[in-house]
Amino acid sequence: MSQQLTHFDAQGQAHMVDVGAKDETRRVAVATGAITMLPATFAMVREGTAKKGDVLGIARIAAIQGSKRTSELIPLCHPIPLTRVAVDFELEEADSRIVVSVTAETVGRTGVEMEALTAASVALLTIYDMCKAVDRGMTMSGIRLLEKLGGKSGHWTGS
Amino acid sequence: MSQQLTHFDAQGQAHMVDVGAKDETRRVAVATGAITMLPATFAMVREGTAKKGDVLGIARIAAIQGSKRTSELIPLCHPIPLTRVAVDFELEEADSRIVVSVTAETVGRTGVEMEALTAASVALLTIYDMCKAVDRGMTMSGIRLLEKLGGKSGHWTGS
Amino acid sequence: MSQQLTHFDAQGQAHMVDVGAKDETRRVAVATGAITMLPATFAMVREGTAKKGDVLGIARIAAIQGSKRTSELIPLCHPIPLTRVAVDFELEEADSRIVVSVTAETVGRTGVEMEALTAASVALLTIYDMCKAVDRGMTMSGIRLLEKLGGKSGHWTGS
Amino acid sequence: MSQQLTHFDAQGQAHMVDVGAKDETRRVAVATGAITMLPATFAMVREGTAKKGDVLGIARIAAIQGSKRTSELIPLCHPIPLTRVAVDFELEEADSRIVVSVTAETVGRTGVEMEALTAASVALLTIYDMCKAVDRGMTMSGIRLLEKLGGKSGHWTGS
Amino acid sequence: MSQQLTHFDAQGQAHMVDVGAKDETRRVAVATGAITMLPATFAMVREGTAKKGDVLGIARIAAIQGSKRTSELIPLCHPIPLTRVAVDFELEEADSRIVVSVTAETVGRTGVEMEALTAASVALLTIYDMCKAVDRGMTMSGIRLLEKLGGKSGHWTGS
Amino acid sequence: MSQQLTHFDAQGQAHMVDVGAKDETRRVAVATGAITMLPATFAMVREGTAKKGDVLGIARIAAIQGSKRTSELIPLCHPIPLTRVAVDFELEEADSRIVVSVTAETVGRTGVEMEALTAASVALLTIYDMCKAVDRGMTMSGIRLLEKLGGKSGHWTGS
Repeated sequence: MSQQLTHFDAQGQAHMVDVGAKDETRRVAVATGAITMLPATFAMVREGTAKKGDVLGIARIAAIQGSKRTSELIPLCHPIPLTRVAVDFELEEADSRIVVSVTAETVGRTGVEMEALTAASVALLTIYDMCKAVDRGMTMSGIRLLEKLGGKSGHWTGS
Repeated sequence: MSQQLTHFDAQGQAHMVDVGAKDETRRVAVATGAITMLPATFAMVREGTAKKGDVLGIARIAAIQGSKRTSELIPLCHPIPLTRVAVDFELEEADSRIVVSVTAETVGRTGVEMEALTAASVALLTIYDMCKAVDRGMTMSGIRLLEKLGGKSGHWTGS
Repeated sequence: MSQQLTHFDAQGQAHMVDVGAKDETRRVAVATGAITMLPATFAMVREGTAKKGDVLGIARIAAIQGSKRTSELIPLCHPIPLTRVAVDFELEEADSRIVVSVTAETVGRTGVEMEALTAASVALLTIYDMCKAVDRGMTMSGIRLLEKLGGKSGHWTGS
Repeated sequence: MSQQLTHFDAQGQAHMVDVGAKDETRRVAVATGAITMLPATFAMVREGTAKKGDVLGIARIAAIQGSKRTSELIPLCHPIPLTRVAVDFELEEADSRIVVSVTAETVGRTGVEMEALTAASVALLTIYDMCKAVDRGMTMSGIRLLEKLGGKSGHWTGS
Repeated sequence: MSQQLTHFDAQGQAHMVDVGAKDETRRVAVATGAITMLPATFAMVREGTAKKGDVLGIARIAAIQGSKRTSELIPLCHPIPLTRVAVDFELEEADSRIVVSVTAETVGRTGVEMEALTAASVALLTIYDMCKAVDRGMTMSGIRLLEKLGGKSGHWTGS
Repeated sequence: MSQQLTHFDAQGQAHMVDVGAKDETRRVAVATGAITMLPATFAMVREGTAKKGDVLGIARIAAIQGSKRTSELIPLCHPIPLTRVAVDFELEEADSRIVVSVTAETVGRTGVEMEALTAASVALLTIYDMCKAVDRGMTMSGIRLLEKLGGKSGHWTGS
């Protein structure tokens, strides 16, 4: 196979890969993920968004703040000046599941996939934290990249 | 339902709940999660652990460091002086899947579930980052608490 | 005057003062502060808390998160494991002013005044940030300690 | 009123607003603030700047460092590569008051008002911290933007 | 040799070692280090400490703040609530060398050697930063532990 | 002498110097440093890199992550979006010494010397941390800049 893990040099040592010669272009990434919970927990979260105890509002803020810490958390990520982060939640009652989707953007030399994925993960972890007193068995899943725009590799969409 | 989301007060406003009256006891949490990839990507990671390009070694360090940032990422988490963090990986070839499990411990007034779950998430995100040049479609799933010891609620195990 | 600034040693050099011999006791601090704005801005914030665009909900989260960063921001502050942080807002329509009050608590060897004051400042800065597109002239004032409990100096209340 | 709080989308959900299409221009912001203390405390600080126990020198460093953490503290702030930060203090003996003014600059897609205001707040909090052992009643006030240059909105000065 | 690197488990995998069963005792560590420069640079620093341009005052603050970030920088370090940090400088004119010594203390389950060493390193790096415009060839050396008190291993002093 | 410490203004007050008018150019810095240990410790580290207990692999990751925190640690450093970081180790058996060299790059308005030097220091501190259980007397030395490219001052190499 000719493909390689670019985060390692020819000797197999990790490095932060050189992006200095890449163009500064607009780059977008969209990530998603979900957390499944008991129906009673789901009802609590849904009511909170309308009335009080706004779990999703807090998870949204945590996700945005988390996206800004990506290069501190992921060892070989480049620091990136994000130009936009948006976080949406969908409530799927049939499965007692909350789906998050995050769009991250920059004008820079490397992509923002990790920023979008990190934000999605932090959103789900925050929902877990806020509901864990009533439901420890919640599970996070389906965290993945949905779409990617910009840079040399161009447009990519997940299946 | 008499249960409540403890991160909100009687008016529905978020707060960092009072744990000052709780005893300092030994507390343990075990969390897990997995990332599924293409067979070729899985092979690259597996070979790296034996020879060079050590993806899992780096993901382990990222997870340990991430556990220490939990209270910065999750808005209502208490800062906790972790006394132990251990991270293990299992390579499930049949499913081209890597499973992480994290054990976190403290001697403190509140549990370390979020520290274990955050570490597991950061481990998976780091694997994604290091392999994304060859496989953008990897998916993270099954991130959940496996076990919890200590504190008033005692021993809990996931199903 | 026999009193001294304890953050300096006998040679006038800054240090983080020794609190190792102090008892671990429950310590509470309450701080307050306010931001004054145009009546139209005030109306926007007030409506947001009821319906959408929840400025104060976001400022509350920022304040709680900010309190956890106090020892990183204030050079000679000791790192402190906070056991409780609560943030309240009062809307004073007559003056187009929003008043924040923060209660911080720990069980530790030194007080949490700086944590409460830092949280109050971050709450006000966040309100400024979210409203600055419509009102750049907002002013923050009256940021001070209201009350302090615990430690050798005992109970103190501001005038 | 046609004006809107730009940090919320059409549904009232918070987001980090898109600045990707804005030009990279030189942007300057000047913020101010003050802390009022007992005359004896004021005398201690003033002497320290000349001789030993340099409260203001430490507050200046804290302010510069704080400006670099703005996007971590203020949830919807964009990360900005600051190109200059300067911090000045004026000692107003008649009122036992120390006035800080901060100038922040960048070449970027969005303004640096929050960086200047955050630095001013951190300067005042640091002065409070260093003097609180002798004067718990100090009050911070008048924290506001004085001037703003650059960007689409052009030159703005406070009244 | 029967000794082992405790940061690895029996399989050679890194972990944050379990200190939960250790007693909370007073622990002290003293570290040192030096930076050698051109005589003209040395003269500039020495004059600054007396008059203006206080390089060492700023390096002292940076060292204290750096000590609080140790567990973020050193992957397998436990987070530790420092109870005291003191930083001293000695100016050795004969060698155009500035020697830093840092004392760090905690009441905790593990030692503070890394906190003292990290603070010493940050002090030297800060001196380098502030003088590099006039002297790029400065060299940092002799960074080592001088003394260690507390914990099971008791009192240790360097040769 | 006409040279000046640029981190101070005409009044001797520290500031983050204005780099807004500088061009964005490619900038490279190479730094080095070493840690000397007992021969038995050296043998343990060398074996670990081949088999298990990978001290240098972890130190490399810590160095890369540390380089991204430089502007948080060094008070007057500008935040810089690094475009490349590479870390190499050389094992000098005759002296039981491990030499680290770090190359840092950016496309920006100011140099990356401090990023390279900070990364080198963090690498050495991490090696110390991982080996200190068997060898407390290790010494770090020779931390200095080797080379610098880009910016107005052009190419510089250490003697």
